[in-house]
Amino acid sequence: MNTDPTKSNPDIYKVIFENERVRVLEYKDKPGQKTTPHNHPDSVMYTLSEFDRKLILEDKEITVHKTAGEVSWLDAQKHIGENIGSTDTHVVFVELKEPSPKTP
Amino acid sequence: MNTDPTKSNPDIYKVIFENERVRVLEYKDKPGQKTTPHNHPDSVMYTLSEFDRKLILEDKEITVHKTAGEVSWLDAQKHIGENIGSTDTHVVFVELKEPSPKTP
Repeated sequence: MNTDPTKSNPDIYKVIFENERVRVLEYKDKPGQKTTPHNHPDSVMYTLSEFDRKLILEDKEITVHKTAGEVSWLDAQKHIGENIGSTDTHVVFVELKEPSPKTP
Repeated sequence: MNTDPTKSNPDIYKVIFENERVRVLEYKDKPGQKTTPHNHPDSVMYTLSEFDRKLILEDKEITVHKTAGEVSWLDAQKHIGENIGSTDTHVVFVELKEPSPKTP
């Protein structure tokens, strides 16, 4: 299964910019929507809406509440995301294409 | 002169996130405001407002019109920016800390 989110969930993950160093994704969903398992490289996330979300990672499950205008860092990871609130999720991801310098 | 924009123009450039791979800046100005010369590393810019801007680079001067929700790439550069429109500028920059792989 392809776990690039633009391939696994192309209805909600769109590439809005790409060059040799970064890829920028826009993510939009509705309450109740749930992704399939997908991978993110090291990424910056910037929120454009307020939302509630469950993230099912390989070893744990977490819930997050975000408001618009928040910046978060995602270490490279595989997860399933689910909109568990009553508002749309709208987020931009800046994915770093180069491997982390701390990766052996 | 310090050309880190958070040092040269701390009233309009704020660090909103930083780790070992990236620094994220929020930029906000008003019509008529003009920066001093400052440097950007390779960066992704995401616009949160519509604005008109003059950029004075070392070898040329350009004007740009942006709407909210646009992504741009900035190759590392030094410039002066000036809000030449009638609306506030509101932008987020994701600065890449690692040197470009194409830099010799």
